Amino acid sequence: MEHFYAMILAGGGGTRLWPLSRKKTPKQTLALTEDRTLFRIAVDRLAPLFPPERIFVVSGPRLTPLLRGDALHIPSENFIVEPYARDNAAAVGLGLAAIAAHDPDATIVLLTADHHIASQEAFHNTLRTAYEVAQEGHLVTLGITPTYPSTGFGYIHRGELLREANGLQVYKSQGFKEKPTYETALHFLADGTYSWNSGMFIWHIRKAMQEFERQQPKMYKLLLELKHAFALTDDDTILGEVWEKMPRKSIDYAIMEGATDVAVIPVDIGWSDVGSWSSLYEVLKLDEKGNGIRGSAETLMVDTTQTLVFSDKLTVTIGLDGIVIVDTPDALLVCHRDKAQDIKKVVEHLKVTGQDSYL
Amino acid sequence: MEHFYAMILAGGGGTRLWPLSRKKTPKQTLALTEDRTLFRIAVDRLAPLFPPERIFVVSGPRLTPLLRGDALHIPSENFIVEPYARDNAAAVGLGLAAIAAHDPDATIVLLTADHHIASQEAFHNTLRTAYEVAQEGHLVTLGITPTYPSTGFGYIHRGELLREANGLQVYKSQGFKEKPTYETALHFLADGTYSWNSGMFIWHIRKAMQEFERQQPKMYKLLLELKHAFALTDDDTILGEVWEKMPRKSIDYAIMEGATDVAVIPVDIGWSDVGSWSSLYEVLKLDEKGNGIRGSAETLMVDTTQTLVFSDKLTVTIGLDGIVIVDTPDALLVCHRDKAQDIKKVVEHLKVTGQDSYL
Repeated sequence: MEHFYAMILAGGGGTRLWPLSRKKTPKQTLALTEDRTLFRIAVDRLAPLFPPERIFVVSGPRLTPLLRGDALHIPSENFIVEPYARDNAAAVGLGLAAIAAHDPDATIVLLTADHHIASQEAFHNTLRTAYEVAQEGHLVTLGITPTYPSTGFGYIHRGELLREANGLQVYKSQGFKEKPTYETALHFLADGTYSWNSGMFIWHIRKAMQEFERQQPKMYKLLLELKHAFALTDDDTILGEVWEKMPRKSIDYAIMEGATDVAVIPVDIGWSDVGSWSSLYEVLKLDEKGNGIRGSAETLMVDTTQTLVFSDKLTVTIGLDGIVIVDTPDALLVCHRDKAQDIKKVVEHLKVTGQDSYL
Repeated sequence: MEHFYAMILAGGGGTRLWPLSRKKTPKQTLALTEDRTLFRIAVDRLAPLFPPERIFVVSGPRLTPLLRGDALHIPSENFIVEPYARDNAAAVGLGLAAIAAHDPDATIVLLTADHHIASQEAFHNTLRTAYEVAQEGHLVTLGITPTYPSTGFGYIHRGELLREANGLQVYKSQGFKEKPTYETALHFLADGTYSWNSGMFIWHIRKAMQEFERQQPKMYKLLLELKHAFALTDDDTILGEVWEKMPRKSIDYAIMEGATDVAVIPVDIGWSDVGSWSSLYEVLKLDEKGNGIRGSAETLMVDTTQTLVFSDKLTVTIGLDGIVIVDTPDALLVCHRDKAQDIKKVVEHLKVTGQDSYL
């Protein structure tokens, strides 16, 4: 698999892990689950399959130096900088152009920098299988088996079984479904043939470029210009000019929903998007009382259960159950785990009232 | 009442309001209930009855400058410094000696610096009445009507009615009871003739000195030496020598339990010892959701009820009920109100493990 490349999309940053996750230090730059950052973990879990020179990172100008410092073994030219955010189809295209200039026979796994994967072994087995399937011309997506009727994920509807390999089933996709209503999500969950769209895709680069050419001819032309620029020079002028013209589309909408030959592999890799404090809690190592503690200072937890503490100073909890405590130098959050989704409202309020220093 | 003096005992400091209350900044130095410190409130509520020159403050060498700075209108010579703590009979004796040197016909109300009194008017009416009763040679104590079977207070058992005045009943005391067991406290509560010992006493100085002479002759001799020293000189040498010999006793044990002519006036002045976060919560101004907020920074409370926040930085609470949050630069407490008494255990743990910087 010497033409197998990993592209980590590491731009953006969620607000639902506020006050730890901020614009300047988004989720992927934080050591949330252990002493390494989520980005570094995303890099490290690639180690046995991808040598550093076959790992590419796409991110913005502000984050790139941070990420680069966190993974110095990856060649600096593999950090591809989006001049500014233009949605993820453009980001993916930029990464494709860079890798295509490098290796026209590349097969690429598209990954995010801010997800948790519990089982590394299952993940590697999945990638090996997906690589094989991608060689046959399929756009492979990894599907996560839903555990609850989520309205926060897109879904993939699987069709006929294409084949079985390495203990995994590979299905033809019957189509992508955008984030559903709760009723529809309930139906998807009960039906059993729908997977969450993890955003992890495995493509041969030629197949991917064909789909851009067929479905997004304007983007395709721009990508060819970018590829040319990557092959020729380090000059960012072309990138700047091209980027201005790049349409803002999501990769799902631009490519995946309309693609032919999409295959889906339902995977069991212990995946979580770590999308909220409560989902972070689910993947943390907990003590015997179900408490999760992160941060550098002493924690005294008296009569406390199922509580998550992120703090760098002495933190004492007494008589708590199911509470999330996140202490930062300028903001403190104390939140019931069941209400963790309401942090979005708080961040929205801070935005609307112009309290940008907290964002 | 130009011979009426107030003596505020302002030494010591509770640990149950940790992490705000510390050795260096005990409860009375904190602005817990409003923007003034408890000490300053204790001083201010004396204003209409006691001019500043008739207010004396007894405290230790470390706290005195802090208290002095908080009440600059009180003459500096009225701040009486205990060289070091030798229990409160010695502290009271020291204050008595200072006032006796000043005015041999003084009547003195003994007060603490760290209690809350909701009704100033009722308090003043009580003091006027107590003053009258003290002129008749009684040692007057103010009794608080118990609202629950507390095992944390001493009790006073009232006997026959001595008289009624200004809407108050004055009883002869049948004796002091030390902090009872829960069963005994239940009995006291049901009986209806027991009051909590508030530690607020009103004495004529001659009667008080007589009781010292009769019950604590050794202390009495030392107090005469101190009185002499206060009358003659500012020299602290005598105080230092006397203080070494001063027995360590509580005022209840040394004087009140064995005193003759003790009178008790049950009072309804909205008294609270502010002895824990939950009792502080009871006396705070709350918003319509029962939340109490103190500190300088913005607080966003979403779906939160009956919660107390002490914080100087942006604090967000979501989905909480009955929680106390106290943020300080080096320690954070998040505690259920019903468990506030367990803070003692935490402070004990910090002490035992040598983490003195937190105390």
